[in-house]
Amino acid sequence: MDVLVPFAATEPKTRLAGVLRPDERAAFARAMLEDVCGTVAEAGGSPTVLSTADLDCEWPVVVDDRLLTPAVNDRLDPPVAVVMADLALSTPAALSRLFGADGDVVIAPGLGGGTNALVVRHPDFSTDYHGVSVADHRRIAEAIGATVTEIDSFRLSVDIDEPEDLVELALHGDGPAAAWLEDAPVGVGTDATGGRATVTRG
Amino acid sequence: MDVLVPFAATEPKTRLAGVLRPDERAAFARAMLEDVCGTVAEAGGSPTVLSTADLDCEWPVVVDDRLLTPAVNDRLDPPVAVVMADLALSTPAALSRLFGADGDVVIAPGLGGGTNALVVRHPDFSTDYHGVSVADHRRIAEAIGATVTEIDSFRLSVDIDEPEDLVELALHGDGPAAAWLEDAPVGVGTDATGGRATVTRG
Repeated sequence: MDVLVPFAATEPKTRLAGVLRPDERAAFARAMLEDVCGTVAEAGGSPTVLSTADLDCEWPVVVDDRLLTPAVNDRLDPPVAVVMADLALSTPAALSRLFGADGDVVIAPGLGGGTNALVVRHPDFSTDYHGVSVADHRRIAEAIGATVTEIDSFRLSVDIDEPEDLVELALHGDGPAAAWLEDAPVGVGTDATGGRATVTRG
Repeated sequence: MDVLVPFAATEPKTRLAGVLRPDERAAFARAMLEDVCGTVAEAGGSPTVLSTADLDCEWPVVVDDRLLTPAVNDRLDPPVAVVMADLALSTPAALSRLFGADGDVVIAPGLGGGTNALVVRHPDFSTDYHGVSVADHRRIAEAIGATVTEIDSFRLSVDIDEPEDLVELALHGDGPAAAWLEDAPVGVGTDATGGRATVTRG
């Protein structure tokens, strides 16, 4: 299956500013992109990086500097998948479940209402990544009479966007992005409240 | 399968204090408990509520006011499962995957290093819910030579503990707990930053 992997090439991962410097964020975003494209290929997909700027990369790259939604919609030629470049917890098994699931539209929801991965088999479907996109994508599918399947995957639900997501990568990742993080100056721990683990720059 | 459902009966869900009043938190915790026990039963499990205080409930209840770890370990008679009472996104399908997975120890990781659900088939395994429990449980299993399987489930990874978890319940839940939340004075939305959706008291 053709798989678009959208990538923000300029100042990526600004929400990680509290724990990673700009050069580290850029390197980390690249490590995640390579990781995700490799995992897509292992799962039998053919990745194309949809980048906001030119990129030296081992995978095919197309450049489109528009916002995510129009850039994706212009290339939504079914059957096609869209897999975010920061799904560093994704595994071949998780992506195989996505690619292999039945349905005109297959959605892997992301934390906080996102759509982290998507398979589109219906010619009239279009994306809307602005706002609570999982709800928008359900509505768009319903409006065109497309069947929707949702994939229940923790590994596809965590896009590495906020500092707390680094906890998930440190605890559950095993690819190049997790290896990059292991060498980075951040540590994972819990405080005395018994809540979720957090990361700190050490 | 016998399934322990640990429940903190006194002042539950204090981390939701920013959006729910104490009486609302107590009612919501009860709605989630009933929801989870019902889902466990639909998945073929026999739930027993392991409560910190006496409780009027349609399911069997045992009371143990100690901390979670010793209370669970005293009742860890394999094969047995432990499913947290705040897994309000759990479905019969997700719990069936958990109960049906092979392995001496089956773990459904929670966000932030937690262990949201567990199946124990090895007589020497014991739990340690303090700290980053998923890492501890992997270590404990390894030390006794027990095989570990991890379940990749978004629905089992989200325990409803922090205000942002209510977003997941509002967007993905369809049981009694989600119905309770729908009637509660909280709303889900996104701000202009394009980040994850949040809840606000409206």
